[in-house]
Amino acid sequence: MCNAVGKKVWIIPDCELPEAGEGVMKGHESVIVVNDRDTPATIDVTLYFTDKDCYTDIKWTVGAKRVRCFRMNNVEDMCGFVVPYDTQYAMKLSSDTEIVVQYGRLDNRQVNLAYYTTLGYNQ
Amino acid sequence: MCNAVGKKVWIIPDCELPEAGEGVMKGHESVIVVNDRDTPATIDVTLYFTDKDCYTDIKWTVGAKRVRCFRMNNVEDMCGFVVPYDTQYAMKLSSDTEIVVQYGRLDNRQVNLAYYTTLGYNQ
Amino acid sequence: MCNAVGKKVWIIPDCELPEAGEGVMKGHESVIVVNDRDTPATIDVTLYFTDKDCYTDIKWTVGAKRVRCFRMNNVEDMCGFVVPYDTQYAMKLSSDTEIVVQYGRLDNRQVNLAYYTTLGYNQ
Amino acid sequence: MCNAVGKKVWIIPDCELPEAGEGVMKGHESVIVVNDRDTPATIDVTLYFTDKDCYTDIKWTVGAKRVRCFRMNNVEDMCGFVVPYDTQYAMKLSSDTEIVVQYGRLDNRQVNLAYYTTLGYNQ
Repeated sequence: MCNAVGKKVWIIPDCELPEAGEGVMKGHESVIVVNDRDTPATIDVTLYFTDKDCYTDIKWTVGAKRVRCFRMNNVEDMCGFVVPYDTQYAMKLSSDTEIVVQYGRLDNRQVNLAYYTTLGYNQ
Repeated sequence: MCNAVGKKVWIIPDCELPEAGEGVMKGHESVIVVNDRDTPATIDVTLYFTDKDCYTDIKWTVGAKRVRCFRMNNVEDMCGFVVPYDTQYAMKLSSDTEIVVQYGRLDNRQVNLAYYTTLGYNQ
Repeated sequence: MCNAVGKKVWIIPDCELPEAGEGVMKGHESVIVVNDRDTPATIDVTLYFTDKDCYTDIKWTVGAKRVRCFRMNNVEDMCGFVVPYDTQYAMKLSSDTEIVVQYGRLDNRQVNLAYYTTLGYNQ
Repeated sequence: MCNAVGKKVWIIPDCELPEAGEGVMKGHESVIVVNDRDTPATIDVTLYFTDKDCYTDIKWTVGAKRVRCFRMNNVEDMCGFVVPYDTQYAMKLSSDTEIVVQYGRLDNRQVNLAYYTTLGYNQ
């Protein structure tokens, strides 16, 4: 399929899981993945850290013509990995088929709501 | 026209319609489309969901050398489709001619104003 | 010079000038332009509107190896054009040499500070 | 290595160091760099200003398969250069190998938290 929309490799440089905070909405971090193709996408996730080796035991699936939101504070979404709070890390998504990826963070640590978003770097 | 500015296909991964909230400014979601060409652009809009099939009955037009802001909470802009609140979805714009697309969200649910924006992914 | 950094054409889809507001910092909109080359860049600015023709009588210059911040509420920066408040418009920058362009908005209308930024679309 | 992820040249147009402010979290500016390769990346940093020549005496290193966060208010990260507060500048990163770069700012000057982020422009 020559006109699939998206790319297979994505990097999100600035990840950091905020604590949930005191507001009505809870602080969190999420990665949103769109699969515009007619077949499911299987994605290998790599986490990079400042002072230790990469973590690579996370795999995601996004169904054909679906969007999915993965939450970094959801241990099930992270395949059992517990993301530490307030710690710099980065993420790579390597998919077997084309996807589109956006990162979002909701920070609620000062009882006001602040957003932080970017599309991933893709190639 | 070989030097038209823009692309024909755009994807916005992270859409979510916030409730209007209590502030002076009302929470909303919008997609802003620029048409730099000398002819109108006709755009097919596809909505992706987490657990159901795509919705494809939305069509937009943007005049030659114009910018238009489409509001997701405006049922007329959505051609009769009612976007649910606080629900993850994604959007694809497929235009017959080159356009440039940005997504914006104003969140006012905690009586403070928070913004969320990105250019769409394009190819 | 084959390895100049940047592109000659940029579009910022979602422009809107907020009123200054009551906070310590004043609400504003700005376009930041970097010129990494050894010669000045001359830039033709086009404004797009929803319901009227483009405005094209704005010209900017950015010196060699300099960054400049243009303020949309500064009539001098806009070459005499008065940008209306709270009105949707878009902007194109067409430069004679490569530049890099980012858009920033500081919104202070609810006595809290909210930011909105994106790189321009470039090609 | 033909499938290295990233680019060698990045520009961040809109840099400005905010004062730390009065909130729990301190205002700051940072540049986050991911190195997905198996060898360290060596990066030459250039700072652009509005009215004076570039500053080029900053060099960064990011280890193989690591992410690093450089803080603009950390004189050590800036190799002894003191970034002035509330002053427009821009940044170029020129790496000997492929990297991915994101810019983030946390503004806390009005006792509420505001974020500002973008991937750098890359080529």
